[in-house]
Amino acid sequence: MSKKIRIINTGGTLSSVMKRNGLLPGLSIHDMEEELQMISGDTDVEIEDFCSLDSANIFPEDWSALAKRISEIRNDYDGIVVIHGTDTMAYTASMLSFMLRNIGIPVVITGSQLSITNPVADAMENLRCAIHMAASRNPGVFLAFNRKVMLGCRASKVSSLSFDAFESINYPNIATISSLGMKIDTSLIPDRTGIFQLSNDYSNKVCMIKMFPGIHRSFIESIANQGYKGLYIEAYGIGGMPFLKHDFIGTLEKIIKNGMTVVVGTQCRYEGTKMDVYETGKRAIEIGALEARDMTSEAALTKLMWILGMTQNVEEIRDYYSINVAGEMST
Amino acid sequence: MSKKIRIINTGGTLSSVMKRNGLLPGLSIHDMEEELQMISGDTDVEIEDFCSLDSANIFPEDWSALAKRISEIRNDYDGIVVIHGTDTMAYTASMLSFMLRNIGIPVVITGSQLSITNPVADAMENLRCAIHMAASRNPGVFLAFNRKVMLGCRASKVSSLSFDAFESINYPNIATISSLGMKIDTSLIPDRTGIFQLSNDYSNKVCMIKMFPGIHRSFIESIANQGYKGLYIEAYGIGGMPFLKHDFIGTLEKIIKNGMTVVVGTQCRYEGTKMDVYETGKRAIEIGALEARDMTSEAALTKLMWILGMTQNVEEIRDYYSINVAGEMST
Repeated sequence: MSKKIRIINTGGTLSSVMKRNGLLPGLSIHDMEEELQMISGDTDVEIEDFCSLDSANIFPEDWSALAKRISEIRNDYDGIVVIHGTDTMAYTASMLSFMLRNIGIPVVITGSQLSITNPVADAMENLRCAIHMAASRNPGVFLAFNRKVMLGCRASKVSSLSFDAFESINYPNIATISSLGMKIDTSLIPDRTGIFQLSNDYSNKVCMIKMFPGIHRSFIESIANQGYKGLYIEAYGIGGMPFLKHDFIGTLEKIIKNGMTVVVGTQCRYEGTKMDVYETGKRAIEIGALEARDMTSEAALTKLMWILGMTQNVEEIRDYYSINVAGEMST
Repeated sequence: MSKKIRIINTGGTLSSVMKRNGLLPGLSIHDMEEELQMISGDTDVEIEDFCSLDSANIFPEDWSALAKRISEIRNDYDGIVVIHGTDTMAYTASMLSFMLRNIGIPVVITGSQLSITNPVADAMENLRCAIHMAASRNPGVFLAFNRKVMLGCRASKVSSLSFDAFESINYPNIATISSLGMKIDTSLIPDRTGIFQLSNDYSNKVCMIKMFPGIHRSFIESIANQGYKGLYIEAYGIGGMPFLKHDFIGTLEKIIKNGMTVVVGTQCRYEGTKMDVYETGKRAIEIGALEARDMTSEAALTKLMWILGMTQNVEEIRDYYSINVAGEMST
């Protein structure tokens, strides 16, 4: 019996059309039906429109609704493909990895750098890859792009123009396509650790900042004063932050004491934090900052939003954050 | 006659020593004199301590003072090497490229991932590369690391642990070292466009933020309310920002009208912005946002600090920002 795949369209470049002001989301999934059936191979493809958004306009409430929708239909399909704009695709893929933890089927997010209406677009190629992965029976949340499949929570958009726009950070690709077909390394797919239960709450009181020379302590304080409950900092190198003339550690200590959860990551793309090497990292850990380790910023941020949506208990937050939930962090 | 090279030490891992709380800046340049003389080859090396800082503690005032110091001694040397921590090295290299624009000698920044006291460190290797480049008579500000020399304003720290920590973004390496020795591609070095004049003013009223799904308009407004004069935004993809439910463009329009200079860049490492493709980018340009194009975030941010240190005139700021000052931007 052929496998049943559901394709959910959220918008983005793949389904965009040229309008007076530039490219805009436009095609409904039904406008693309002919193309989708053509590339469906021996799978039985069904389609639906979820929204029609440039992915810069996808917000946490959309993740939550999308996770709910996928949860509702998961038992009726062998796999699900989500069409999504590339701009925030890695954030969505990361958050869905948490919200849909332990899902029993493949959920594969894809999109393209050119509209499906463009004769030289990457759209059909990427959809084909995503459908094939969705039919593979390998459970989890994945991102398919340019003949590669990655764990959703390890993906990051690294190139703004190239077809080869995404990279799996600090973790190998799950699958690649070559003249030998799609080769999936199933040993790289994290084992399910429990039964599926939709977990689509989140906190919208989380902020991200990127450290830079000249950053004022008062900037951090102003974030605390705006009522945020979580702060993800893209610090330097393996987790470096200023601690002399401009004493960030002292400021962080104060806001952590006042109940903010602070996670320290790095603005280096590869290899993550290692905060036990330098004085500044050690001091940050001592005052209660959490460490992003080798997570992408996309995963570190969405994980913080997700955990703060579930609990306000400081010990639970710390504990949860240190656990590898969906393959996002090396242990 | 052998060439005269000045080595200026600012601290960082290269000259760090192990203390109770972890690695800390410690060695003075004179503690390293023996090693430095050993690798000086046929150059005549002189040394000085400028400061002894973990580079997370280097701030814009240090860039200004360092540029002044280099300007003072530039006529007495064939080249200058700056020893610097890796965490903010790319920011310093970018800002020195602007502050020391049109300097007539090579200024080469380097450092290492392990202390010079560590027997397997990369410190000697990187210093050797930097000294050799400093003796090459090719004028400009460069960064030397792991047998590669890059334009200072194109370098970025991409790996937090590897010796191969830096990458030249959207521009080829200026030089590489192989078994054939150092090969410098002088065609890649921007021509001097005038005589040297120290230009070490800067604005400390510049802020950087990284866009993320869920970012509140009020966060941008709070930055404007804190008295910042410049804002560099790491947006998505080729310059995408939310414009529907969460209308950033409207908020940006307001703060630009109130006198803030806003530059839009990308959180994608490669290829930069191209804001004439999508509606959101076009609208951002229409309301007066500037575009970082293919600059690194390090260069885009320091260029904004530097220009706002020179002028408050809106037209001059716009004009200056669009010019390729030191090779930081493709034209």
